[in-house]
Amino acid sequence: MKDEVFFGEGMARAKNEYPDLYEAIVSLNEVAYTGKVLDYKTQKLIAIAITAAASDDRAAKKQMMSGMKELGITKEEIVDVLRVVLLTSGMPPFTKGMKLLGELEK
Amino acid sequence: MKDEVFFGEGMARAKNEYPDLYEAIVSLNEVAYTGKVLDYKTQKLIAIAITAAASDDRAAKKQMMSGMKELGITKEEIVDVLRVVLLTSGMPPFTKGMKLLGELEK
Amino acid sequence: MKDEVFFGEGMARAKNEYPDLYEAIVSLNEVAYTGKVLDYKTQKLIAIAITAAASDDRAAKKQMMSGMKELGITKEEIVDVLRVVLLTSGMPPFTKGMKLLGELEK
Amino acid sequence: MKDEVFFGEGMARAKNEYPDLYEAIVSLNEVAYTGKVLDYKTQKLIAIAITAAASDDRAAKKQMMSGMKELGITKEEIVDVLRVVLLTSGMPPFTKGMKLLGELEK
Amino acid sequence: MKDEVFFGEGMARAKNEYPDLYEAIVSLNEVAYTGKVLDYKTQKLIAIAITAAASDDRAAKKQMMSGMKELGITKEEIVDVLRVVLLTSGMPPFTKGMKLLGELEK
Amino acid sequence: MKDEVFFGEGMARAKNEYPDLYEAIVSLNEVAYTGKVLDYKTQKLIAIAITAAASDDRAAKKQMMSGMKELGITKEEIVDVLRVVLLTSGMPPFTKGMKLLGELEK
Repeated sequence: MKDEVFFGEGMARAKNEYPDLYEAIVSLNEVAYTGKVLDYKTQKLIAIAITAAASDDRAAKKQMMSGMKELGITKEEIVDVLRVVLLTSGMPPFTKGMKLLGELEK
Repeated sequence: MKDEVFFGEGMARAKNEYPDLYEAIVSLNEVAYTGKVLDYKTQKLIAIAITAAASDDRAAKKQMMSGMKELGITKEEIVDVLRVVLLTSGMPPFTKGMKLLGELEK
Repeated sequence: MKDEVFFGEGMARAKNEYPDLYEAIVSLNEVAYTGKVLDYKTQKLIAIAITAAASDDRAAKKQMMSGMKELGITKEEIVDVLRVVLLTSGMPPFTKGMKLLGELEK
Repeated sequence: MKDEVFFGEGMARAKNEYPDLYEAIVSLNEVAYTGKVLDYKTQKLIAIAITAAASDDRAAKKQMMSGMKELGITKEEIVDVLRVVLLTSGMPPFTKGMKLLGELEK
Repeated sequence: MKDEVFFGEGMARAKNEYPDLYEAIVSLNEVAYTGKVLDYKTQKLIAIAITAAASDDRAAKKQMMSGMKELGITKEEIVDVLRVVLLTSGMPPFTKGMKLLGELEK
Repeated sequence: MKDEVFFGEGMARAKNEYPDLYEAIVSLNEVAYTGKVLDYKTQKLIAIAITAAASDDRAAKKQMMSGMKELGITKEEIVDVLRVVLLTSGMPPFTKGMKLLGELEK
């Protein structure tokens, strides 16, 4: 289910207290992950890549977890994502991504 | 050919004047795009995503051009990449990406 | 009108070719700028601040122009925004913002 | 008091050990928050916006706390700031901001 | 002269119209480049590195020009800076930096 | 030894499981820190600067620790680096860097 990644603490509050904001986000999320030609899994790998490249630990971890659980994305696939992160964004986001991935395996 | 995107002006100079640097970059590029499980095209879509999300016009344009020419990546596929950019990185990099894509079609 | 800033080249294409994406963006934009307590002008100053702090020339210029035209935001108000940009984000985005502002005055 | 946010651990040390640096920062801070036309509260909302948009947890939390305590900025006003963060910077900084805000309410 | 890099168009206007802002910036600049142990040239190389790593063309170019002109920083020294940019920040800011450097040689 | 900073948890795994990736990174690291004209210590100060300016706590701390241990970089030298970070990147990365430095002294 594409919006599962939303239901962290922050979004739960948004749903109750700011329903207009919540609706717009659900709709944005739906549209973002409804590719015309790319499948959801490829788009999820892209979301992992963008958050890892931005050195955003919390978001990258959420995307990795959601991708592994919802879509069966494997550790090997995430390493292949991180290869591109290394090239485009340098060592620090790469090693951070490898570390996050190691923590998810435990 | 995976390193074609390198042969901009900057890399041409690196090759002649800094061969050690050039060799390390060629090797890095090779390793980055030699995924164990993801194919080159998926990795290229990821490189487009990361550079577009970082609002890096020049790099995003190079990646889009290289992906279209080398790998037959379509406009529709790039729009599906940009959908994820919109969700994870907001309107400015999304509209910039759409504009770059429009310029490449001309 | 809150969505006027959208109708650059990129969004015009999105409207025709990707109506689902367009609808979600219009709805997001509406929700973003419909503050419960802050007025639209304050939110616009915030959008100018965020794009200027991120050194995103194109987006900052669009936000400045739209704020000046739609909402009567003055040059003095934008300088006061850029003061905070200087403190939180350093000299390069500050001088870039001052330069953009100077171009808009001409 | 405008410089209260400074007196974290780092600035306390700067004051004692690097008085030249400390004086320049106090002066910069004073100038940044002495808008000619915008009031201090609006400038503080802008500082919250910039740090939240940059996904800088520590700085965003400090700015939120300082704004709430010094200036009576409300939770509702910060949510209205975060609406603009969502539009300009995407989901990850928005949800992070909502989470920080939730922690401050406790 | 340490503040020469300031006298672009933006700072010239600041000096005339916002003398408080101008004074704080001059003082900040003085303090930033008055290292207790590192010399000005090393600090300038650091400023080149930070702006190049952030993919900020305009700021990186200004820093490179100012470093070359004021302090006799050589092309070779800047390439050594860009080596570290490649490692920490990836290919796009590295190639952009090499391109900027090439333009300055002409 | 120039690659010591690599042997965090993430790189240890890379070495065993992805030897191609590991080799390319070792080679990249070697090339990055083998300046033709700048010495290793100056390049290390640059790596500290870039990671601190990017507000990347984990990477900045690793670079500071590695620089202090391997190369005898002093606290005073890092403060002089952070002076440039303040000018180019604003208060939040500066205070974060000062805080990290304080933690390393304990």
